[in-house]
Amino acid sequence: MKVKGFYAAAVQAGIRYKDRLDLGLLYSHIPAAVGAVFTRSVVKAAPVLLGMERLRAGKAQAIVVNSGNANACTGEEGMRMARSVGALAAHALKIDEELVQVASTGVIGAQLDLTPFAAAMPKLADSLSEDGFDELARAIMTTDTVPKIASATISIDGAEVNLLACAKGAGMIMPNMATMLCFAITDANIDQPALQQAVSSGADLSFNRITVDGDTSTNDTVLCLANGAAGNPLIDESRPEQLALFTAALHGIFKDLARQIVRDGEGATKLVTIRIEGAATQEDAVNAARTIANSPLVKTAFFGEDANWGRIIAALGRSGAKFQPERVAIAFDDALLVEYGFGLGKEAEAAATQVLKNKEFTVTVGLGAGAASIEMLTCDLSCDYVKINANYRS
Amino acid sequence: MKVKGFYAAAVQAGIRYKDRLDLGLLYSHIPAAVGAVFTRSVVKAAPVLLGMERLRAGKAQAIVVNSGNANACTGEEGMRMARSVGALAAHALKIDEELVQVASTGVIGAQLDLTPFAAAMPKLADSLSEDGFDELARAIMTTDTVPKIASATISIDGAEVNLLACAKGAGMIMPNMATMLCFAITDANIDQPALQQAVSSGADLSFNRITVDGDTSTNDTVLCLANGAAGNPLIDESRPEQLALFTAALHGIFKDLARQIVRDGEGATKLVTIRIEGAATQEDAVNAARTIANSPLVKTAFFGEDANWGRIIAALGRSGAKFQPERVAIAFDDALLVEYGFGLGKEAEAAATQVLKNKEFTVTVGLGAGAASIEMLTCDLSCDYVKINANYRS
Repeated sequence: MKVKGFYAAAVQAGIRYKDRLDLGLLYSHIPAAVGAVFTRSVVKAAPVLLGMERLRAGKAQAIVVNSGNANACTGEEGMRMARSVGALAAHALKIDEELVQVASTGVIGAQLDLTPFAAAMPKLADSLSEDGFDELARAIMTTDTVPKIASATISIDGAEVNLLACAKGAGMIMPNMATMLCFAITDANIDQPALQQAVSSGADLSFNRITVDGDTSTNDTVLCLANGAAGNPLIDESRPEQLALFTAALHGIFKDLARQIVRDGEGATKLVTIRIEGAATQEDAVNAARTIANSPLVKTAFFGEDANWGRIIAALGRSGAKFQPERVAIAFDDALLVEYGFGLGKEAEAAATQVLKNKEFTVTVGLGAGAASIEMLTCDLSCDYVKINANYRS
Repeated sequence: MKVKGFYAAAVQAGIRYKDRLDLGLLYSHIPAAVGAVFTRSVVKAAPVLLGMERLRAGKAQAIVVNSGNANACTGEEGMRMARSVGALAAHALKIDEELVQVASTGVIGAQLDLTPFAAAMPKLADSLSEDGFDELARAIMTTDTVPKIASATISIDGAEVNLLACAKGAGMIMPNMATMLCFAITDANIDQPALQQAVSSGADLSFNRITVDGDTSTNDTVLCLANGAAGNPLIDESRPEQLALFTAALHGIFKDLARQIVRDGEGATKLVTIRIEGAATQEDAVNAARTIANSPLVKTAFFGEDANWGRIIAALGRSGAKFQPERVAIAFDDALLVEYGFGLGKEAEAAATQVLKNKEFTVTVGLGAGAASIEMLTCDLSCDYVKINANYRS
């Protein structure tokens, strides 16, 4: 799929490993509106700090991204390196360096060596192509086993508008190699505040509702560039119908990517939707869902295909959500397992166990305490998760 | 070791498994002052609810405890069963049933069958002995691989005062089989409010500062009985010196047991003390320690003996604690690894890696944000943890 006026490429720069794509470039023929969300961690990597600074101008024309080194916990020197990487890209593209967003994923605490960036950048810029997005998606992979791409085409005021995005995940964080990154491009003509709103709300409904291991990266970044090449009349807040259309499309691809990230979670064998219903408040719903979704005991039970609802109740109990145990209901897909806080017996458990044999299922928990609900995606915790994370640097 | 006036025993009642001790009894020759702390989970097992009710009287003469069934999520019927178990013990001991504390650990959501309790109780009461405490410690084991006992003898106002306690752990929770239980006995003559204060503060400094997997049980219980048989003049708040002496001894055995619990954590191969220094507030110190201690990525790095300080920084970053990344210092035992937020290079990392090869070590994190500090105990996350928890019910 192509998005008008956008070009991408990736090369093997040898930043940490040989023989793998590790440097990617995304370029718009004209400066584009940019919307972004960054990690909420107190510890922000240099490219994140630089990105937050450059986001203020609301415009970007290129994104340069490397894997192999996160450029995090690298201080002032790291900031200089991030600026230098951006400057190398700007020079090769002959654009203002303030229009370059920089992203990194990889080892924390090691300074970037500029040499491979400088050597690779001219070739990278030369190989930009309308079809390069797949290669970009590959260049940001780390422990991901598959590249993650989603796209949408919609019609706004008669104009064909394209949206295309890639993401990487694996662990929510693996400071050595991983991080959640997402780069989206669209040829929509949309003003920056509207774009930012769509990106922020979209990230909240997608990337902020998944968990692999409960960790948060120093480098998490979602960037969306909109260059207006579709030629549609400008979308802004004065035209809520068109804005809603665009926002829905962007949210759709974000959700698609979020799902792909969890499905490809480190060592994951199951994709599980945790659905909380009947919470007293939205905060309670989030806390209940997050506590269940992150509980090692719940996640190992999923891995073991064990309909162990006691672990779900126990996680609920410590979640901070207000509820009465005797009102709790739990179902695995359509198999109701707990009602009024009581297990429904061997037959119900057998049906639930059958559901657990699937690769994807939904755990619905009714709290009977109010009207708030939420869905969160998680995966199981397998021996492979431990192996991947224990053995990586050895 | 013996504590004057206390008798204990355990039998194979066949509550869930054959051929293992699963029913224990602890008895004082006279009603004893009782101090207790119970799970903070919203979901409290029937014996916990009963125990909280009976704690109000401040007196107890016996504790009856079973493994194999947690009697949790069992509603009104479960409460009747817990009372019945207590009544069976009271009948066999010929004491008031209000003086019996009941504790359970095991499967959540299954009703107790009273038959094995009724059949075993007379024999259990008959076999009470001054030397029975070791057997009691065995009867409460589940996935624990070793019984956990700690004791102390102190002199108060010239009288010899003995303290003896056992605990079980394994996972902070395994609703099927595990829970944190601790039963302590002492012949100290101490009034109930002072005893309760010593138990509460002791639990805060020991059992509330350990984590195996971040989960909390529906059945967690710490009970301490003091029968005054040592004959020391009454310890109460009007005699702070004696109270401090007793409290220090109780805290000592609680800390010892807490350490034993983490060392025997499910699948654990390393016992790790997480020490936070220089936090802005005590709450920040707790949040920082807890987030690091529970991070799957930090715990798998310990398992892999990987001095991966980036994962520690990343966990700090999402912990909610206030700090400036450029002030953070990290050491593994004496090996300083990070200073002013920067890694100290390959040599420092090699020294830290050497520390990780030990079975026990301390990770000290300096935040440079204030004067609050805390220590928390954790263990590594191994493949065996996943296997134990994934395969248990299959």
